[in-house]
Formats: sequence, structure tokens, C-alpha cells
Amino acid sequence: MNILILGGDGYLGWPTAMHLSGKGHEITVVDNYLRRRMCRDEDVEPLFDVPNLFERTRIWKAISGNEVKVMIGDLMDWSFVAEVFEATKPDAIVHYAEQPSAPYSMLSRRAATMTIQNNLLVTANIVFAVKEFCSKSQIVKIGTMGEYGTPNIDIEEGWLEVAHQNRREKFLYPRQAGSLYHTTKIMDTDLLWFYVRMWDLAVTDLMQGPVYGLFTDENNDHRLLPFFNYDELFGTVLNRFVVQAVAGYPLTVYGKGGQTRGYLNIRDTLNCVRLSLEKPAEPGQLRIFNQFTETFTVNELAERVKKAAGALGLKVTIRSVENPRKEAEEHYYNPRHTGLLELGLKPNYLTDDVLTRMLEFVMAHKDGIKTHQIYKKVKWD
Amino acid sequence: MNILILGGDGYLGWPTAMHLSGKGHEITVVDNYLRRRMCRDEDVEPLFDVPNLFERTRIWKAISGNEVKVMIGDLMDWSFVAEVFEATKPDAIVHYAEQPSAPYSMLSRRAATMTIQNNLLVTANIVFAVKEFCSKSQIVKIGTMGEYGTPNIDIEEGWLEVAHQNRREKFLYPRQAGSLYHTTKIMDTDLLWFYVRMWDLAVTDLMQGPVYGLFTDENNDHRLLPFFNYDELFGTVLNRFVVQAVAGYPLTVYGKGGQTRGYLNIRDTLNCVRLSLEKPAEPGQLRIFNQFTETFTVNELAERVKKAAGALGLKVTIRSVENPRKEAEEHYYNPRHTGLLELGLKPNYLTDDVLTRMLEFVMAHKDGIKTHQIYKKVKWD
Repeated sequence: MNILILGGDGYLGWPTAMHLSGKGHEITVVDNYLRRRMCRDEDVEPLFDVPNLFERTRIWKAISGNEVKVMIGDLMDWSFVAEVFEATKPDAIVHYAEQPSAPYSMLSRRAATMTIQNNLLVTANIVFAVKEFCSKSQIVKIGTMGEYGTPNIDIEEGWLEVAHQNRREKFLYPRQAGSLYHTTKIMDTDLLWFYVRMWDLAVTDLMQGPVYGLFTDENNDHRLLPFFNYDELFGTVLNRFVVQAVAGYPLTVYGKGGQTRGYLNIRDTLNCVRLSLEKPAEPGQLRIFNQFTETFTVNELAERVKKAAGALGLKVTIRSVENPRKEAEEHYYNPRHTGLLELGLKPNYLTDDVLTRMLEFVMAHKDGIKTHQIYKKVKWD
Repeated sequence: MNILILGGDGYLGWPTAMHLSGKGHEITVVDNYLRRRMCRDEDVEPLFDVPNLFERTRIWKAISGNEVKVMIGDLMDWSFVAEVFEATKPDAIVHYAEQPSAPYSMLSRRAATMTIQNNLLVTANIVFAVKEFCSKSQIVKIGTMGEYGTPNIDIEEGWLEVAHQNRREKFLYPRQAGSLYHTTKIMDTDLLWFYVRMWDLAVTDLMQGPVYGLFTDENNDHRLLPFFNYDELFGTVLNRFVVQAVAGYPLTVYGKGGQTRGYLNIRDTLNCVRLSLEKPAEPGQLRIFNQFTETFTVNELAERVKKAAGALGLKVTIRSVENPRKEAEEHYYNPRHTGLLELGLKPNYLTDDVLTRMLEFVMAHKDGIKTHQIYKKVKWD
């Protein structure tokens, strides 16, 4: 398959590119290094440097023999989008090209505006480009479980059959998110659903939970590792806790710590995206999967990291801090997630081994940790 | 009350400005003449010319003695937004400042992108400006009944209590719109709802049906009339049918003509906005009203116009044309609309008198009708 990976430089984009390239697909990665610039601008650099995309693809070719094409530019700019689609005529588009951070989107008016503009206009440009250049190709979009928020009823996979006054209707599951970033993902889904109905696009929307980890089958050479952020803006909670444990920085639990989310290993992200591509949505179908493998409270994650770190001789404390967010700290949470298992996903669960390997890697990079990055107190109000 | 009317030059904006000014409120109208430019660019000018905003306010002052302030600029530009809010410190903001046409939003990629960008970024700027300059003031936003689409269950006023697997949750009513424009209004509502929860904004979202008419208590002087568009892009269906009847142009019904919507007289728009302002939403409340007074199918509207025109000696034919839109032509439609009645709305229904007065006015302007504007066949695919 000829696959475009938009946002191919990111934490998930680059590992996905190698994974699909390794499976024999023809890959083009597209990025404008937005994530790198945001990290530099906000002084929250990743734990270790990673080479630029051209260098990454050279290293990957030397190791795997597979060529990955690189196109650098801004997907908000239609002239660039048209160039990319005209040059590649892809069978499939994997769309990671969004501002991905909830706390970043709450930093300032400018950050919020950029998030709305980038996420909506890039998604719209992809829709228009598919219509114009490759109307039969499928789109795999990374959504987020955060679109659902924490409703008091079970979370279904994307759709909800509602009975009301003796009549029935099936709707997109009503979503209500906890950050502006997550709200833009709701809007993305609505935008895609509109054009799926109008133009018979084939779209898979993967409602993903927080991802952890950095090792995949394709990055034994450490130069091929993804960004590893451990800050409040771009570091997902488990990755951050692992670094905090190594740094001797108390694990910061927001408020009561009962916030429950569905998590997954980065390896499973790659598998979910690949499985979705291999069994595509139909034309005129918006197919939604809830993409996570197990749920944890923040307290449980902290305890798991503390235990695994303790076995390595690290002394870890857990500290509850005032919650800078506006969110339920204890709530009902029962999301379905059978769709990807039915497609063939074999989950990589969060075992002590997984944690130990992450901890050992971070211990070897301990000198690179800048503790001032960890907790920036980005407030939701 | 010190009230900002954003989009104060528009079909509804200017009549609202005079209405509220006449009731003793202090009014500032803000506009960038986007609607005028779009009409010129697309060659769909209104039936008669209207003076610019400065001239309109001079005429209004000469007649009523009331001053209305004018600020011209683009509300996507934060520096202008900040200037407006700093200068006015409004108690209330009436937000009409959006690209308001469904067919326009389906014209081209550029039109779609502009609609997304304008509608979302202006709404976001209003939220940020309220937070920064006047956090206690209320926002009255014009939404659209089109956000709901045509679901197979009753349409409630904004919210839906869902029972699912023996648990309950109240959601924003799930919405699924029929055009990109309407989809951006869904996004607007989601954006406002997010910041209402985060920042305790007080917001009323008026889900309005198609408006008809042009006469209000404040515009007996015809220089104060609103734009009157009769084209497929900016003319709402009843206004368009009235002009078609006068021009001897068959009334164009899309497909079967069973499309049902909730309609209202322009006088009622003004009353609904005023009633909402006078009894504002609470801080932290997103209050949603369905703003229409009666429902009609397109076939019924065509018959009503034909009958009233016939009584004036006009010979009118009704012609079904291939539906350029992708929409249900026969469907269930039962939307509630009690909230505004409870606030005190006294509806102006679509009587033969109302139609006759509109027809007579248009007959007097018959020379200005350009029939090539009426049906442009903007296709949804």
C-alpha cells in the first residue's frame, strides 16, 4: 500500500512509519516539525535528541533496506498539501498532524487559537485533497478517548443508539471533552463525519487513550527512538512518572487521583493503525474504534511505577498536588473496546517487565533529565 | 445595557441594533462587511442597495435620536477584538459575526476553509475577549436549528437525557448537520460549552430556523431596511419564493419538497434576542433555545406564496427540480420550542397579510430583480 503519514516526525508518527515500512508498505512521511518547535519554545525538550526526518530515514534505510520518502511543509498550506497528494497519490492517509497536547491548548489565547486553526484546517485540507486527488483512498485519523470525557453511562465505540419517546435514532456518541485540544478532536470527528456522508469518504477514527513506552520492533538502534517527553505539556502520564521516579521527583498526582483512563503501549498504537489500514472502512463509513487495552486510575499508575522502581532500588514517593485542571477526580468509567480486538489486536499489557525496561533506559539517560520541566502548573482557568 | 452587536451590518444584525437601541440600550455595531463582499464576489447582490453602517446610524439617529456606535474591522484579528472590547466593556455581546450561508460553504474548498476559519476563530476570540475584558458579561450567540439535522426522534431544546444500560446522563443534544456551514455551528456550540464549563461564561445559544421578512417596528424609513437577498446563496427560502413569484420565475422546490423546518418572522428574531438579553443565562450556564415559531414543508411554503401572490393577480407555478443537496426530502420532524415562549415571546405568524405586504414591497422593486441570481445549482457533492 502507498501510505502517507502526516505528522510523521511525531512520538507516534515516526514509529508508525518504520512499522508500516517494515511490513512492506511504501511510505511518505510529512511534517513541519511543529512539535519540535513547540518543545523548544516552551522549554520542554525531550529526554534525548533525535535526528531530523531525513537523517532518520537514512538510518532506517541502512538498517532495513527500505526507503521512506520525506516531505517537509505545513499542511495548513493548501499549495503544499496539493503538492504532497499530487506527488504521492496515496492509497491511505494516516493523520497524526495535529497539535497533540491538552495542557498546551490551555496555555494561552495564542496557543488555543493555533490548536483550533491547525487541527481543523489540516483535517479539512486532507478531506479536500482526498476528494480532489485520490477519492478512493482511506483516511485513518487519530482521535482520542478524551472526546468522550467521563460520562455517567457506558462509553460505546463511537455510536449510541438512543431511545426517546418511543422512537429510536443512532447518533455519534455525544462527546464532551475536558480540554480545548480534546474539543478540537470532537470537531475533527464532526467534520469527517459530515464529509463521509456527503462524499462517501472511507474513514477510521481511532479514539486513542494515553500512550506509553518507546520501544518497538523497529527501533533497536537507539537513533531511531521516538521523542520521549516527560514534561507536563507533551509527556503522557506514565512516561512522565517513569522519569520522575528515576529523578527522585515525587510522582505528582492531581487531586484525588481517581481519574481513570484507557491506556496502551506504543506497540499497540502501531498495530491498531496497521490493522485498520489492512481492513479499511467502507466508502461512506466513519468507523470508530476505542483504542486502548486496559484502564487505570492515576493512583494505580503511580503505585505501579513505585513498585517497579522500588525493585530497581529507587526510592519513590507519591504526592497529591492541587489539580490545575477542571475535571472529575472520581467518576464512573466503562468504555467498550472490542473493535480492534476483533480486527486481531494482541495487546501488550503494562507488565512489570515493560516498566522495568523503561525505567532502566531512563536511568541510563538520567543526566539528561531537567526536573524544572516536569511540573509547570498549567492551569485550566 | 451596553451591548456589542457583532455582525451588526447583516440581515439580522442591523435590525437587532435598531431594535435594542430603540429600547434604550447603548449599542455598538461591529462588522467587516464580509457579507457585502461575498455577495459582490459571487454576483448575488441584494434586491436593493443599503447604505453603509455609518450612514445607517446617521439616519437612525435623525429618526430616533439614538446614537449607535460603529467599529469596522475583522473579528478574526485579535488586535481589533481587543480594541473593541477595551473601548466598550460591554455588558452583553450578541454574536452574529459568522459566514451565514450553507450553500456558500459548499461552493468550493476556499469557501469551506473560510467558513471554518471565520466562524470558529471569531467565536474563540469572543470567548477570550470576554474572559480578559468583561468576564461577567453575557454572550447571546445565534446558532441554528440546522445543527440538529433531521433525527428520527423528537428534538429537545439543546439537551438530551439519555438512559443507557440502567444508567443516565444528560448530554448536549447529539447534532448532525446537513452542510459545512451548519457543521461549523455545531463546533461553535461545542467550543462555547467547553469554555462555559471551564470559565463560568454565561451563554445563550439560539438555535434559529430560517428567518423571513424585512419589516420591523424600526424601519418604516426604507433606507433602514436590511439586506434582502433572493438568491440561492444568501436568500432564505421564503424571501426567495416571494421574489420568484413576483418575477414570474417558477418556485423551485428541491426534490419532493417534504423538507420540514421551523421558521420565524424577522420581528421574532429581534424579540427572541432581546428577551434572552433581558433574562440572561447564569454564569456557568449554556442556555439553549430553539428559535422558531412554526414548521412548514417547502411544499407548504410554495403553496402559501402561490396563494397570496394569486390574490394579487400574479400567476405562480411551482416546479420540482433535482435536489442539489444531500438531504432527506421526507422525514420525521418534531422539535420543541417552548423556552422562548416561556420568556414571553408573542409570535408573529406567517399570515396572508405578512405575505401580501412582502409581495407588494417586492412588486414595487420588481425592476431590481435579476433572475439569473435565483438558482445557481450549488451542488453538495
